[in-house]
Amino acid sequence: MIHEKKLLWPGREDVSLTTYVLDDSQEMLAGKARPAVIVCPGGAYLSCSDREGEPVALRFNAMGYHAFVLRYSVYSENKGGMLFGGDKDAQAKPWLTHPAPMRDIARAMLEIRAHAAEWKVDMEKIALCGFSAGAHNCAMYSVYWDKPVMREPFDVEAEALRPAATILGYTLSDYCFMEQAAGGSEDPMARGLFEMSNLAFTGQRRPGPELLEAISPARLVTKATPPMFLWATAGDRLVPVQHSTLMATALANAGVPFEMHIFEQGDHGLALADQSTAHDVGQLNPDAARWAGLCQAWLEKRFALNLPQEAGW
Amino acid sequence: MIHEKKLLWPGREDVSLTTYVLDDSQEMLAGKARPAVIVCPGGAYLSCSDREGEPVALRFNAMGYHAFVLRYSVYSENKGGMLFGGDKDAQAKPWLTHPAPMRDIARAMLEIRAHAAEWKVDMEKIALCGFSAGAHNCAMYSVYWDKPVMREPFDVEAEALRPAATILGYTLSDYCFMEQAAGGSEDPMARGLFEMSNLAFTGQRRPGPELLEAISPARLVTKATPPMFLWATAGDRLVPVQHSTLMATALANAGVPFEMHIFEQGDHGLALADQSTAHDVGQLNPDAARWAGLCQAWLEKRFALNLPQEAGW
Repeated sequence: MIHEKKLLWPGREDVSLTTYVLDDSQEMLAGKARPAVIVCPGGAYLSCSDREGEPVALRFNAMGYHAFVLRYSVYSENKGGMLFGGDKDAQAKPWLTHPAPMRDIARAMLEIRAHAAEWKVDMEKIALCGFSAGAHNCAMYSVYWDKPVMREPFDVEAEALRPAATILGYTLSDYCFMEQAAGGSEDPMARGLFEMSNLAFTGQRRPGPELLEAISPARLVTKATPPMFLWATAGDRLVPVQHSTLMATALANAGVPFEMHIFEQGDHGLALADQSTAHDVGQLNPDAARWAGLCQAWLEKRFALNLPQEAGW
Repeated sequence: MIHEKKLLWPGREDVSLTTYVLDDSQEMLAGKARPAVIVCPGGAYLSCSDREGEPVALRFNAMGYHAFVLRYSVYSENKGGMLFGGDKDAQAKPWLTHPAPMRDIARAMLEIRAHAAEWKVDMEKIALCGFSAGAHNCAMYSVYWDKPVMREPFDVEAEALRPAATILGYTLSDYCFMEQAAGGSEDPMARGLFEMSNLAFTGQRRPGPELLEAISPARLVTKATPPMFLWATAGDRLVPVQHSTLMATALANAGVPFEMHIFEQGDHGLALADQSTAHDVGQLNPDAARWAGLCQAWLEKRFALNLPQEAGW
């Protein structure tokens, strides 16, 4: 395995791509390129959760794919710690706000492309996999990858940024819906998190309708949106499951292939829902833990390694 | 992840332990130690197969365990290449023969113990997992770990070498049985491999009855032998499945807890039996691939992480 941390922007320590690049062998692919998955942890654009990083990358490794963990632009600048309580005096950090996080994914795609020969990566088969706000970032990338805003910082054709598939775990997808659901909440904790997360991601505590629309991938799906795998729990008390069902409806409307699994029980942030990512027993959920196997089967329909029929030795 | 290759003996490049040590986090185990699995690839004591190394370690990582790949003493000195055809002029390499390979496992245990605090390893929960000749090596260790021959090169108590569980994939276990089955074979290929493998492991092409007995773990099981998980395919044309059933019989006779899964179809050397380890489509076997999930469930009964009931934040 090649395991190293790459910084993605000059002068910035906070945005990084950690590689989990599989060893090849004459006994295995003998030099052929493999698909890869870029993993975006969640954390409300305030931080990037460790539980949704390395363990998920290793799960994709175990499927035979290279994997990468992307720590994208978040308010804590990936210095750790959580700011979920909200902070009345917090100031916007404009260099971290939209479209910075989705451009970090573009930068990661180009970093992988630059090393594709060395790492033996099949650039036609790059999937994104995110959780919560990280899923939102992947969904945003999936609807913006072919737009000028993405190419702007880079001298590349859109095709260089095309993702082959996107995997969304308990995603956020519709800020207009969320404005209705959480913005008017009487719960000061929910309201505080909503406003702090808005400040982190947009620079504003209460973004206006045009901006809300522009950061709602469920409202921006086109035929260019990649095939998607979505999973969530209907019991999620932090990010309502409608974010997943609305996204799926948009995909169906646009004729984009997708698969979705919604488990009835389970709270927000289950990650792999087994002991590989659990902090406490509340994060163990054998039903929801089936998502990874379901995702493996779905992904393999697109990403199956091209193996010879005969051993040839 | 801490990923590095440690050499285990002064002046030797061939015997190494490659670490796949999981990152911890305040969001996860917050400093608590994890169980670990030492993986021994197969290769007839002539080489160590890449297919039965890193991909298997990553599969155990994905279960939430640290993992290590041990390249133990083999005739090729881990320089790659296969010598399966046999070689009439090959000479014994006494420094690589029994008991060297099982002592390499002891040395690996002590290396992990020396780093247990740094790597956060639960030394009471170290499992061995081997394939083919690597499984034989793990089985040998499992019946010899408490004997003087193991402690001899080290100044330690036997308890420092105790394994908590052993996982055997298409193992060799009974050289007396093999002498009957393969030693008298008319097939020059099978006969050549048998004699070359004997030369590699014992220094003799046709070991005598006492030595055959001493390298047959199925004949040496005691109550001190750790619980075992065995899997194999009845269709194995290289290592007859009787090596697994004889071992299981010995475990049952001694009252050692074990679980065994024998899939009807499938040839030798399937490793994980999915695309993560396949060289060609003949090594894809969805039935046999279930062994890893079955093993995960079995291992979790002993190795479940000790998680708090409540989040506590």
